[in-house]
Amino acid sequence: MPGEIVSTPNPSPLPSSLPKSILTDLAVNISLENVLSEDELHSIRTFRRAANYIAAAMIFLRSNVLVETDLKETDIKPRLLGHWGTCPGLTLVYAHLNRLVKKTGSNMIFVVGPGHGAPGILSSLWLEGSLGHFYPQYSRDKNGLENLIKGFSTPEGFPSHINAEVPGSIHEGGELGYALAVAFGAVMDKPDLLVTVVVGDGEAETGPTATAWHAAKYLDPAESGAVIPIVHVNGFKISERTIYGCMDDIELVALFTGYGYQVRIVGNEGLDRIDEDMAASMDWAVQEIRKIQKAARDGNPIVKPRWPVLILRTPKGWTGPKRYKGQIIEGSFKSHQVPIADAKKDDEGRKTLQEWLKSYEPAELFNEKGEPVQEILDLIPNNPMGQFRDTYNGHNPISAPDWQECAVEKGTQASSMKIVGKYLDKVFRKNLKAIRLFSPDELESNKLSSVLDNTSRNFQWSPSSRAKGGRVIEILSEHTCQGLLQGYTLTGRTALFPSYESFLGIVHTMMVQYSKFVKLAKEVPWRNQNASINYLETSTWARQEHNGFSHQNPSFIGAVLNLKPEMARVYLPPDANCFLATMHHCLESKDYTNLMVGSKQPTPVWLSKDEALDHCRKGASVWKFASTDNGEEPDVVLVGIGTEVTFEVVAAAALLRKLAPNFRVRVVNVTDLMILGPTGSHPHALEEDQFNELFTKDKWIIMNYHGYVNDVAGLVFGRKGVAERMIAAGYREEGSTTTPFDMMIVNRVSRYHVAMEALQRTKPDDADELVKKLQKELDDTKKYIMDNGEDVEGTYDTPSFD
Amino acid sequence: MPGEIVSTPNPSPLPSSLPKSILTDLAVNISLENVLSEDELHSIRTFRRAANYIAAAMIFLRSNVLVETDLKETDIKPRLLGHWGTCPGLTLVYAHLNRLVKKTGSNMIFVVGPGHGAPGILSSLWLEGSLGHFYPQYSRDKNGLENLIKGFSTPEGFPSHINAEVPGSIHEGGELGYALAVAFGAVMDKPDLLVTVVVGDGEAETGPTATAWHAAKYLDPAESGAVIPIVHVNGFKISERTIYGCMDDIELVALFTGYGYQVRIVGNEGLDRIDEDMAASMDWAVQEIRKIQKAARDGNPIVKPRWPVLILRTPKGWTGPKRYKGQIIEGSFKSHQVPIADAKKDDEGRKTLQEWLKSYEPAELFNEKGEPVQEILDLIPNNPMGQFRDTYNGHNPISAPDWQECAVEKGTQASSMKIVGKYLDKVFRKNLKAIRLFSPDELESNKLSSVLDNTSRNFQWSPSSRAKGGRVIEILSEHTCQGLLQGYTLTGRTALFPSYESFLGIVHTMMVQYSKFVKLAKEVPWRNQNASINYLETSTWARQEHNGFSHQNPSFIGAVLNLKPEMARVYLPPDANCFLATMHHCLESKDYTNLMVGSKQPTPVWLSKDEALDHCRKGASVWKFASTDNGEEPDVVLVGIGTEVTFEVVAAAALLRKLAPNFRVRVVNVTDLMILGPTGSHPHALEEDQFNELFTKDKWIIMNYHGYVNDVAGLVFGRKGVAERMIAAGYREEGSTTTPFDMMIVNRVSRYHVAMEALQRTKPDDADELVKKLQKELDDTKKYIMDNGEDVEGTYDTPSFD
Repeated sequence: MPGEIVSTPNPSPLPSSLPKSILTDLAVNISLENVLSEDELHSIRTFRRAANYIAAAMIFLRSNVLVETDLKETDIKPRLLGHWGTCPGLTLVYAHLNRLVKKTGSNMIFVVGPGHGAPGILSSLWLEGSLGHFYPQYSRDKNGLENLIKGFSTPEGFPSHINAEVPGSIHEGGELGYALAVAFGAVMDKPDLLVTVVVGDGEAETGPTATAWHAAKYLDPAESGAVIPIVHVNGFKISERTIYGCMDDIELVALFTGYGYQVRIVGNEGLDRIDEDMAASMDWAVQEIRKIQKAARDGNPIVKPRWPVLILRTPKGWTGPKRYKGQIIEGSFKSHQVPIADAKKDDEGRKTLQEWLKSYEPAELFNEKGEPVQEILDLIPNNPMGQFRDTYNGHNPISAPDWQECAVEKGTQASSMKIVGKYLDKVFRKNLKAIRLFSPDELESNKLSSVLDNTSRNFQWSPSSRAKGGRVIEILSEHTCQGLLQGYTLTGRTALFPSYESFLGIVHTMMVQYSKFVKLAKEVPWRNQNASINYLETSTWARQEHNGFSHQNPSFIGAVLNLKPEMARVYLPPDANCFLATMHHCLESKDYTNLMVGSKQPTPVWLSKDEALDHCRKGASVWKFASTDNGEEPDVVLVGIGTEVTFEVVAAAALLRKLAPNFRVRVVNVTDLMILGPTGSHPHALEEDQFNELFTKDKWIIMNYHGYVNDVAGLVFGRKGVAERMIAAGYREEGSTTTPFDMMIVNRVSRYHVAMEALQRTKPDDADELVKKLQKELDDTKKYIMDNGEDVEGTYDTPSFD
Repeated sequence: MPGEIVSTPNPSPLPSSLPKSILTDLAVNISLENVLSEDELHSIRTFRRAANYIAAAMIFLRSNVLVETDLKETDIKPRLLGHWGTCPGLTLVYAHLNRLVKKTGSNMIFVVGPGHGAPGILSSLWLEGSLGHFYPQYSRDKNGLENLIKGFSTPEGFPSHINAEVPGSIHEGGELGYALAVAFGAVMDKPDLLVTVVVGDGEAETGPTATAWHAAKYLDPAESGAVIPIVHVNGFKISERTIYGCMDDIELVALFTGYGYQVRIVGNEGLDRIDEDMAASMDWAVQEIRKIQKAARDGNPIVKPRWPVLILRTPKGWTGPKRYKGQIIEGSFKSHQVPIADAKKDDEGRKTLQEWLKSYEPAELFNEKGEPVQEILDLIPNNPMGQFRDTYNGHNPISAPDWQECAVEKGTQASSMKIVGKYLDKVFRKNLKAIRLFSPDELESNKLSSVLDNTSRNFQWSPSSRAKGGRVIEILSEHTCQGLLQGYTLTGRTALFPSYESFLGIVHTMMVQYSKFVKLAKEVPWRNQNASINYLETSTWARQEHNGFSHQNPSFIGAVLNLKPEMARVYLPPDANCFLATMHHCLESKDYTNLMVGSKQPTPVWLSKDEALDHCRKGASVWKFASTDNGEEPDVVLVGIGTEVTFEVVAAAALLRKLAPNFRVRVVNVTDLMILGPTGSHPHALEEDQFNELFTKDKWIIMNYHGYVNDVAGLVFGRKGVAERMIAAGYREEGSTTTPFDMMIVNRVSRYHVAMEALQRTKPDDADELVKKLQKELDDTKKYIMDNGEDVEGTYDTPSFD
């Protein structure tokens, strides 16, 4: 076969001592006879040759892109960037998915774990015409091909990793570990959808992937589509052997059988039969999926359905140069990135590159106009994956019911989470199959269990929820929750991720990766907007009495603060009504990363529903009911940001009113953190006069902030004239299993600390004496807590200002 | 058996359709005949009864701790905090580990994944006398027992989760997922050590745990000890069934066989035989471990040794109340935390509690002095786990060789990583078995491969490294790297974690958890200091040409900034010599979290070795060679923090010198970020006069910072009078696969941006004209990059100031 370099397979792993019966009993055997017609086989092989050729050329060439003459130094790019090693495996899969889609007419998304294999995906997208469909400069002709090859990994072309600019993509191809969960999220509530996901054997080593295999156990075959996972075992990471590459077939079959799958190993019939092998394996996979789905949809769901998984063994950098300057390239880590890094300057390198590229016989792959030859076009389905609308069509907005129907009476005490749980129940009822909640098993603890009033947990391995749907998935893996949320959101739906505050940081970098995808998606004209991703943080450090120090970490706020401002939203609603208004707003918003932080404990409802709406719209306001400045210029401004620390601010104002009736105190609550930054730094940042109206022009600002002071200080830094008159307190990594008020004390955000700070900074006449009084009250309180193991009764009664 | 409540087992999982042969062929069968003598059995059961009694009492009682009279409301704590559900499983394991240690004399550490099971561990530690050994108030008598029970989960007692105050612990019991990797890290290079680790079936769902099972593949049986992992399957998380609890035995056996283990299921013989079962299983596990170790140590290592794993099935909250007010408690999620939450106020609750506690027959467990009865003492080994020195004895400092021997010549260009790699090779050679390097397969890419000159990767599943030792472990799981590093460090050794900058954030919360452990450890008088944990970040956003946007994320700096100041250290050494000095310092330091950030690309060596030493000691200094203020008061201070952005600052100074020879520019480099905070905020924070000497009292400070501006701004916020005269630039989430200089441009930290900012802020006479000139140069450069796909030649030549 021209251009088909027959290659040695991977270096074999050491054989395990496990019984061979595992393999014979459990691995799926399929006959490869008559799987493909000769024409089909030819089409597939030609597609692969073309895709591999273009991918290799993209890494190296800036001109002479079809190698019509001998390569010259000037034909080679000045900076060789890109990753070759994974590409041939990806083009193999792509070719066969084309066949499958063409044959079955399926809706298919391809989630590519090895996102640095962008050349292999872009070349396939060009061949199927999807690049040309979205980008005129990459038309399916000589000009388009030249632009694609020349532009790749240069400042104006496609970057080296898959991102939102790549048609068909719903996953940022950078940080490894998340492709599998994203694939499972995408198929949820889309019964006709298939998502094929390739997990490289590098990515397979990550924790997030290792547990995401269990995500199949949360897939209801009646209401959702299915995933075809392919573990691509090519044996090497950047420079070390992979774990999966060193496992023999028996170990792999045992492992994935244990995960709950039926396992088919692709590649054992030799590379010359790999196309028949892959075609037969994909047909088998779809057939198994249809069996499982049919049973469930007919009302006779299979107990613990064993979904298919394919394990694909091909050499790393397959079809690339076998050796270069004495070193093995194909089938080794040396082909991970650029296999001939000195191709520009070195004659032997250029010669080797030319031989390699010529081995695909490019002259036979394209016609004189530079279009792919007919046998390639024969493979392309009418609905190619790169143009599947669910990947770019944006979201169907949910209909968020009126939150005011759930509002609670001002002056009472209410748990924000309990109230929000009731509201979410309404949201679920009104938006069947359009919204989901992913949580690491904390709904009950977070007092959000009302969301389960009319729906249930969807865990197919559990007797109670099998094949009966359910909007809630609780898996104790924040990574899986986040991956599911991403896949679900990027295919047009809305999702919510409630979590203990301290543990959202587990997905810090995942969230950043996702936001990088969305940042680019917003710049891509053919992509529509999606729902925001919505985080609800509760069980915060301020009320962690059950769990103590290890459960105290408000760092996720900082993660969101460092995103691009146009996407970052952080809310700390001070009461249940404000939380409702915020939730309503977030669920209807688009393309943001919304972080909502609040308490699950009963706390005062400070604002009526109308006041709450007004407060949330403004992002911050003066709380006149708690202020003692009578609308005049105050002596000091006390600012609360966050539920519990705001309570302390209000209590401090009450203390000061009693102790120093003439001391004019203004109380401000900030519910939208983003108002604080310098004007222009964020869409919500207040204008200078608005800022000064709230915080005065020159008075001391005593800020009691829920998170790390460094975060809020960094935010305010550029505000003119503020650093000199503002002091901030927040969580300072102090605390244990102790009482709620002791947490305030040890982190120096208690009402006493706030009041003392106010006096010490502003120095009214009797400041010293008052501070002494306050210090004594503080000491007495602390002693009471230590002696009695509980807070002084009445500590959390709403302070009166009458 | 008195107090031994015979219980229903877990709700059975749905049976899978997998062939039963998996179970018969692969699960380990052991005879339980004659495993335990009657005395042994009695001792074990009595120990468990006592431990369970104390654990339950700790959650509820503030007085009448032996329930010598009927419980009254006042006997119950005002706030019921703690987690019961996991405790009985932990005490079962503890009892049997005592037996094992006593029988074999093994060195044993117990790593407890379900760290919220602190009551069960603390009760066991009290019974064995370890609490009394370290804490006189918890002596093994009535007084000590009363203090333990009363104090638990109150402000002065032990907190509800295992932390550094708990004897024998080397793992913070909060965020789940990391116990397994910590256990593997602890046994490395300690051939005689056994570590038993319990992984709850909640924790087992996490990604970090799911992949840490592979850590056994990195354990060299000749040079390291072994781990006995126990998966404790009790079926429930906080309120949802667990995945593992819903897997049947066949699925579990297949899964763990696939991971590479021999699987023994404990509990299938019924709860009344669980002690024989557990004893026989532990004996079997140790025997298998010894076989593997002996073979390797005799020079005939077993290929792919199958280490043992135990799967323990007991009901959640076993021996607790069966039902309460109509709800099932034992064997359900209702026993996760406090099973009878209203025990204080509710008569039925108090009665149920009393019956429960009495069922253990406390009067038979302790003698009249409150000491445990003899049959319990008979079980305690001479070297109980809570007093094993490796868990608290601190570290054997490594001997860090003289870094100056690796120093490079000032004025040349050198890759910091290449030079540091050579230094680390020396460190390894000088400190055999005392230092390790954990990395997610990036050594080669990070240009640190010299560390492999005299050692190798230790991956037992790979043919090349099998049973031959090696200081380096490269697994593509940052979580596993971090867990191994923690276990290795907390048992007295030194470790280094090099990583792509963007991906260290993956372990953000893990690092915070670890630092919480260390923070407490420093306050515990009987714990000695350990080595610092050392992170080396390279392949930073500033030089990510191969990978682009997805690989740009400097957020780990912020994670370290929010730690307790006495533990947080962040260094951004500007050249190879400074990096060497910093590495030397960090490797010899204690109890810190050291983060070192630097470039892998060749960059100028600005400082000689003596100058580098001086610069690093000070943390920051004026770079006179690049300044043009001739030692006078400058017009502006340009500050570089980080390799590439400092280069731009130096280049900006050179530009300004050319354009505006009379404009006096001072160049400052900050290598120790912590000098910047307000005086007193951090041990390294400069005194105000030191700060002003560097940065002047009133001139503009134009800061070019490597990370997110918010982080450095937050740090500087409290510095008097600085916010008004400082402007900072840094990474702003812009970039793609582009040229190095374009990255500087799009993030507005290029030499042109620095120079323009300086001029615009300070407004010298010809500012406008000069800015125009600079803007044109910038535009031309940008155009050149776009047209040519590379940077202008000479961009990275060292600027001359002669």
